[in-house]
Amino acid sequence: MNAHSVGRNAFRMLYLSRQWMSVGQRSCSTSTKPTDKQQSGSGAATDSDEIVKKELYFENQVLRLIMNDPKKRNALSLRLLETLHKELSSCDSISKLRAIIIAASPPVFSAGHDLRELRTSEGQAKHAQIMAKCSELMNLIQDMQLPVIAEVKGVAAAAGCQLAASCDIVIAADNAKFSVPGAKAGVFCSTPGIALARAVPRKVALDMLLTGDPISAQDALRAGLVSRIVDESKVEEEALSVAEKILALSRPVVGLGKTFFHMQIGMNRHDAYRHGERVMVENLRLADTQEGISAFVEKRQPVWTHKTDKVH
Amino acid sequence: MNAHSVGRNAFRMLYLSRQWMSVGQRSCSTSTKPTDKQQSGSGAATDSDEIVKKELYFENQVLRLIMNDPKKRNALSLRLLETLHKELSSCDSISKLRAIIIAASPPVFSAGHDLRELRTSEGQAKHAQIMAKCSELMNLIQDMQLPVIAEVKGVAAAAGCQLAASCDIVIAADNAKFSVPGAKAGVFCSTPGIALARAVPRKVALDMLLTGDPISAQDALRAGLVSRIVDESKVEEEALSVAEKILALSRPVVGLGKTFFHMQIGMNRHDAYRHGERVMVENLRLADTQEGISAFVEKRQPVWTHKTDKVH
Amino acid sequence: MNAHSVGRNAFRMLYLSRQWMSVGQRSCSTSTKPTDKQQSGSGAATDSDEIVKKELYFENQVLRLIMNDPKKRNALSLRLLETLHKELSSCDSISKLRAIIIAASPPVFSAGHDLRELRTSEGQAKHAQIMAKCSELMNLIQDMQLPVIAEVKGVAAAAGCQLAASCDIVIAADNAKFSVPGAKAGVFCSTPGIALARAVPRKVALDMLLTGDPISAQDALRAGLVSRIVDESKVEEEALSVAEKILALSRPVVGLGKTFFHMQIGMNRHDAYRHGERVMVENLRLADTQEGISAFVEKRQPVWTHKTDKVH
Repeated sequence: MNAHSVGRNAFRMLYLSRQWMSVGQRSCSTSTKPTDKQQSGSGAATDSDEIVKKELYFENQVLRLIMNDPKKRNALSLRLLETLHKELSSCDSISKLRAIIIAASPPVFSAGHDLRELRTSEGQAKHAQIMAKCSELMNLIQDMQLPVIAEVKGVAAAAGCQLAASCDIVIAADNAKFSVPGAKAGVFCSTPGIALARAVPRKVALDMLLTGDPISAQDALRAGLVSRIVDESKVEEEALSVAEKILALSRPVVGLGKTFFHMQIGMNRHDAYRHGERVMVENLRLADTQEGISAFVEKRQPVWTHKTDKVH
Repeated sequence: MNAHSVGRNAFRMLYLSRQWMSVGQRSCSTSTKPTDKQQSGSGAATDSDEIVKKELYFENQVLRLIMNDPKKRNALSLRLLETLHKELSSCDSISKLRAIIIAASPPVFSAGHDLRELRTSEGQAKHAQIMAKCSELMNLIQDMQLPVIAEVKGVAAAAGCQLAASCDIVIAADNAKFSVPGAKAGVFCSTPGIALARAVPRKVALDMLLTGDPISAQDALRAGLVSRIVDESKVEEEALSVAEKILALSRPVVGLGKTFFHMQIGMNRHDAYRHGERVMVENLRLADTQEGISAFVEKRQPVWTHKTDKVH
Repeated sequence: MNAHSVGRNAFRMLYLSRQWMSVGQRSCSTSTKPTDKQQSGSGAATDSDEIVKKELYFENQVLRLIMNDPKKRNALSLRLLETLHKELSSCDSISKLRAIIIAASPPVFSAGHDLRELRTSEGQAKHAQIMAKCSELMNLIQDMQLPVIAEVKGVAAAAGCQLAASCDIVIAADNAKFSVPGAKAGVFCSTPGIALARAVPRKVALDMLLTGDPISAQDALRAGLVSRIVDESKVEEEALSVAEKILALSRPVVGLGKTFFHMQIGMNRHDAYRHGERVMVENLRLADTQEGISAFVEKRQPVWTHKTDKVH
């Protein structure tokens, strides 16, 4: 794709200056003013103390979550895990939203778990809580209806690599690095390996896990860990461009498609097809689907309702 | 391989001028005359109204099915799905046959489902029938004993991409394209995604499914969707050359091997090995297998019976 | 990595002049003298009749098993399968050992099963015994705690390819070849296909299985069958270098990590995470893990006990 194509859309971006409304409210916060990318990039309108900054693009249809704990290299502390989980768990019920981007305050994407929280002194109950929340987040990203895109600049290490591997689409800077080196600090990347082994060939995963060696963005692309590579300066632009492609689709169609994809991948082929047939037949009942087919036949652009109404 | 190596064999190709005998007859139609590739390519001897044209090569041992609905871009209409399924379901019981090729009348391989058949006016029962037949075809290709090779020129889109992904071996033109853009017309490529996700890394599958962007033959090769790439003019030749390699093997050995491959891939490793041991021990009972071992030890060419007779 | 970095360590290599102590003794044989690589390479201290030669490196922490039946192209005869299995099955209980290398006397890695043992005259009971032992070996390599590294020079064919595919990490010479051509001798590579299909995309596996065509080390790397490629003269050095990276880690941490990796890969994602959470929480109880975290926080090198003692 043309990395510049999103440029004009950046001006349509709306920026959210107040707290994002959380679960329960089920509506999208009002955007206050359009802004250009430079302004939003400066984080002027967001409380810089927030561990997750939020930006809205494309008339509030794309939520960009920015992990914002750069002093801790965006470590997936319990607080960050909980905040990301809380934000994401409300997204499917905000009807305006259509795609999510997970980004990070530079220079690293995420260094993985906060090792300080994994010490004996923190207590085993907290360790269990951290691991449960982490699994819950990774599962949510794949089980939720809205597509989740990761922007990876710098290093994605350990649970940070797991987070990237768990997203539907990963845009990486061409100088990004991916690693699962936990064993060097005595904590084998067992749970990051779950995500990694489902993204790349197991020889790649095992080499990374057993040696701790990082791989380049290029190797990550070849192995399947990354979807697209662009110059570091274009990562955000490319992520927004991919989000814009998703905006051209009907919300419930994307929702049923994404959730079925992640559901069927763990099934044997015959079960997947048996279930898939029903998903297709249900898909065809949607008003948006019949509009899409008509538009295709009539060679015009479809007009989506983004609703789950059925016509038969 | 040398793309020219099949040249001399093209002259051994026999062309079928009458209807291919269908299931129940269990014998191979008599070929009427040898022909060169140019003649068969023109489709002179086949009713051009047939939605699937048939050609036989290598003394009736290789059946080449040509999807022939170019005006509909070889859309997988119910009629085409049923015809392909009917043809393929008879192949295992035709003892002469050893490999199948699925090709298409240019310029596209297949555009996927016929969207006109997926409209509300067609009725939900027909939608279900189409989806069931499509799954049945894709499963049959993998569950049948004879290897199935796809020749992909032009675009393989949506269920057309699924069809290619479901074949054992895919020969693609170096300018071929693969895509699963159904969501653009409101129909998420849920069932094509089943085949795609089992062929390529899921990051590749999800990018294709969520953006609708096509990938090149080169990217498809790197991702595992395609087995071999050749110049567009050599696709048929390469497919026949691969078929010829299969002809050098014993029919029941290939049959048990292919079916076990597709069966074990859904099992956990321990179950796969437990079952695989038995498959190996049974394999060794075949007369052809013992002949093959003797020939190997004696450094001579084996003489196959292609029968399932056992020697112990 | 720098292929020369292991050079200085080669001098630390200790060579075992007597029989390796087998299962039941549970202790590491005493090394008798340090030696340099040239001496060990000549096999001077080992009975050259042994079907598996053994070398120890890095103060007896790395065991290098060398398949040594070059006249039979290191065929995986029942004797070789049993010897490899016996050696490997004792390794986890030898506390000093930390990594295993499987190498081969040149010029080939392994030609696969000894076809002479698969003839009718050997009897079906022996065939079953061979297949059971082969599965047992391949499963053991993945289920054992110590990482297993393969050094592949020359050809890895049929069950030889399966052996490489079953190892955690594969270092291949840049002129190595991989193939599963058993069907040419009437024995479809059904069980090798189990390992192959879990390492590479299925289109790659099926092309290799159905045509018998070999793939290059470069294609094997791209497909995921191989971890790293080096010049043929550097294969041993690179394997030792990878082993050295594993030596920098704590033994029980690597052990739990490797076994969980191979266990979770057959689970669906939700089950894998549920189980993985517990593995992580247990991992954190290890004394070595808490030492590793402290060392990381204090920016110093950890001092491992390599024991399974828990601190909470």
